[in-house]
Amino acid sequence: MDLSDIAALARPSDSKVVLLVLDGLGGVPIEPGGATELEAAATPHLDALVRTGTCGLHVPVAPGVTPGSGPGHLALFGYDPLRYRTGRGVLAALGIGFDLRSGDVAARGNFCTLDGSGSVSDRRAGRIPSDESAPLVELLDNIEIDGADVFVQQVKEHRFLLVLRPDEPLGDAVADTDPGQVGLPAAEVRALDEASRPTVRLVRDWLDRAAAALAGQPKANGVLLRGFSRLPGWPSFEEVFGMRALGVAAYPMYRGVARLVGMETVEVDEDPQSLVAELERRFDQFDFFFLHYKAPDKAGEDGDFDRKVQVIEAADSVVPRILEAGPDVVLVTGDHSTPALLRNHSWHPVPFLLSGGAGRADASQSFGETACASGALGTVRGCDLMRLVAARAGRLSKYGA
Amino acid sequence: MDLSDIAALARPSDSKVVLLVLDGLGGVPIEPGGATELEAAATPHLDALVRTGTCGLHVPVAPGVTPGSGPGHLALFGYDPLRYRTGRGVLAALGIGFDLRSGDVAARGNFCTLDGSGSVSDRRAGRIPSDESAPLVELLDNIEIDGADVFVQQVKEHRFLLVLRPDEPLGDAVADTDPGQVGLPAAEVRALDEASRPTVRLVRDWLDRAAAALAGQPKANGVLLRGFSRLPGWPSFEEVFGMRALGVAAYPMYRGVARLVGMETVEVDEDPQSLVAELERRFDQFDFFFLHYKAPDKAGEDGDFDRKVQVIEAADSVVPRILEAGPDVVLVTGDHSTPALLRNHSWHPVPFLLSGGAGRADASQSFGETACASGALGTVRGCDLMRLVAARAGRLSKYGA
Repeated sequence: MDLSDIAALARPSDSKVVLLVLDGLGGVPIEPGGATELEAAATPHLDALVRTGTCGLHVPVAPGVTPGSGPGHLALFGYDPLRYRTGRGVLAALGIGFDLRSGDVAARGNFCTLDGSGSVSDRRAGRIPSDESAPLVELLDNIEIDGADVFVQQVKEHRFLLVLRPDEPLGDAVADTDPGQVGLPAAEVRALDEASRPTVRLVRDWLDRAAAALAGQPKANGVLLRGFSRLPGWPSFEEVFGMRALGVAAYPMYRGVARLVGMETVEVDEDPQSLVAELERRFDQFDFFFLHYKAPDKAGEDGDFDRKVQVIEAADSVVPRILEAGPDVVLVTGDHSTPALLRNHSWHPVPFLLSGGAGRADASQSFGETACASGALGTVRGCDLMRLVAARAGRLSKYGA
Repeated sequence: MDLSDIAALARPSDSKVVLLVLDGLGGVPIEPGGATELEAAATPHLDALVRTGTCGLHVPVAPGVTPGSGPGHLALFGYDPLRYRTGRGVLAALGIGFDLRSGDVAARGNFCTLDGSGSVSDRRAGRIPSDESAPLVELLDNIEIDGADVFVQQVKEHRFLLVLRPDEPLGDAVADTDPGQVGLPAAEVRALDEASRPTVRLVRDWLDRAAAALAGQPKANGVLLRGFSRLPGWPSFEEVFGMRALGVAAYPMYRGVARLVGMETVEVDEDPQSLVAELERRFDQFDFFFLHYKAPDKAGEDGDFDRKVQVIEAADSVVPRILEAGPDVVLVTGDHSTPALLRNHSWHPVPFLLSGGAGRADASQSFGETACASGALGTVRGCDLMRLVAARAGRLSKYGA
């Protein structure tokens, strides 16, 4: 179903919605037949919501596909991540909290090593540490060119963000300069459509000055650029669902993806109490609250099953306070699975619970992957969830007469 | 999700995968509430895999749609059969093991009976038996025309395969000559695009000579052609999933559909031991092994419930030998259901089990339709399975940042 179809159904309401994202929530057992992290956690408050609400599993992208954080959150916001795709440049900007504006052209940059003949001998400049790359980023950030403001910001190690803010609107269809392998020179920067020819002239000008600035550096004497992209012109979350939305997150990446769909955002501390405090403070000003809790994903990526259990329990402990704020509908889920066993994001479907509004109960007595697999809502696509949420919040009218 | 999206995520690995297809595996109970063939079978080894692995049901084409062998297998190979369609001519060539090459134009032929006025009085020439049609096929195969090599091979009874191997590349957009009903003459052969006009000239030339060769035959004195088609230019299985693949099957149809996606193939005997022997022999040379076991489908089409039970048990008995070969991931399923009750392929979802790699357990204790209906993987599309397999085999990287 297209976002425009949803927008046509959206109707006003005073209802309030909380989306609590426990990042990387889904897990797998360490031993076959054992409990997952969520199943091992004592979550009395979430279990109580499951008993009065409904649960299920969601697939963020497609069966078998492991989602990045961007696609995982877009799905939760109702945007099909296979249709709503963002360039690497934009994602890099979001990831470090750069205030990307409409019209900015962003690219992901790598420092690289060029040999005497100008060929790339290391595409990551020996993974130069961040403290060595920081002064080089500053050198690049000081470059000025005619026709655009240019911003260069450090990402990490050999990675940086390049943003052109052109005086006139320009295209972003610019081919990567990364040759993808060593032994070749960087590819010529090249326009893929007519509107991007002036962009290429600006990038070429900048690259010449960057080459001069880095000449003589032992490792990072060149740069490679890829993923040229602008903020996409997607319909905003408010345009689609008719809800004024606030994104509350400690990490820039998650505020960035919330801003990508037009949410307002606010930075808070990492603990779950801080999320709820912000919910309480702004409850009257917004209709939809995206609360992002990073800790389960970090514990999963560290391979720390027990810590993931603990931080899920910490999230559970703030559920009563969330309910006291008085939301009409609460959706608790993750943007993807991050099993401690795999130390990484994974493709496994993500448990969710939906509480408030009219719905059927299921047999599930507690919040966990196995219970959700036989939940009343079954297994749905991640981008279906927001429609279910909006329906329960009384915000979608009938389709057809 | 497009195959090109999957190819972009595929990453190298040393992992090995076995896809064991028990053709026509799915069944239905003879009496409501009874066991299916698979449920009635004693399958201790498959049951053990279900207890440590995950199961579910797959829908090869779409709910309610009964798949042919081609679409059923394409789905298992990860190709959505609603998007990846093959012409009847190509399928006929695959079905009889004809070595169809890129550029060949294939068509399905029928012998027909023409009355004195040249109208079709029987579209199947009285279903002329194979021993009567064989010499007529030979007559047709001896016809030579300018501009192409022509091959005619018997399929069965009134059916044959016509293949043009043109000297120059030609189109395959040629309309069927079968009028679809009796009392009308065969339709004029006619091009549906510019590139297929020369093809039509060749076909017309061949049809004139065929008419002359068959003149005077009592029943089969004419031919009707349909389903003109060439091998499709699809991305190969190896291009999509990054795995060198071997198809092992006793019947030409299944080796044909494996070759259609670029697999190497090998012919073996019909018993399941022969499949495994080939797996053992070639284990180091390939990453993916498609093992095709025909017997359950044949028993189902014969309406022989008990024999279908027995041949499923025979497949179960070779499972330990498959596991000893050392694959990382094993998928056991069918290409469609063939319930003995219906004596035919059917639309019922097909049970599958997925073993190896990280995954959640489900409550299922044995391999069967009812257990799979509440399996942890739920009901998925057939073409989703290969992504799940590739994910478990560690062969797919993250989608988006």
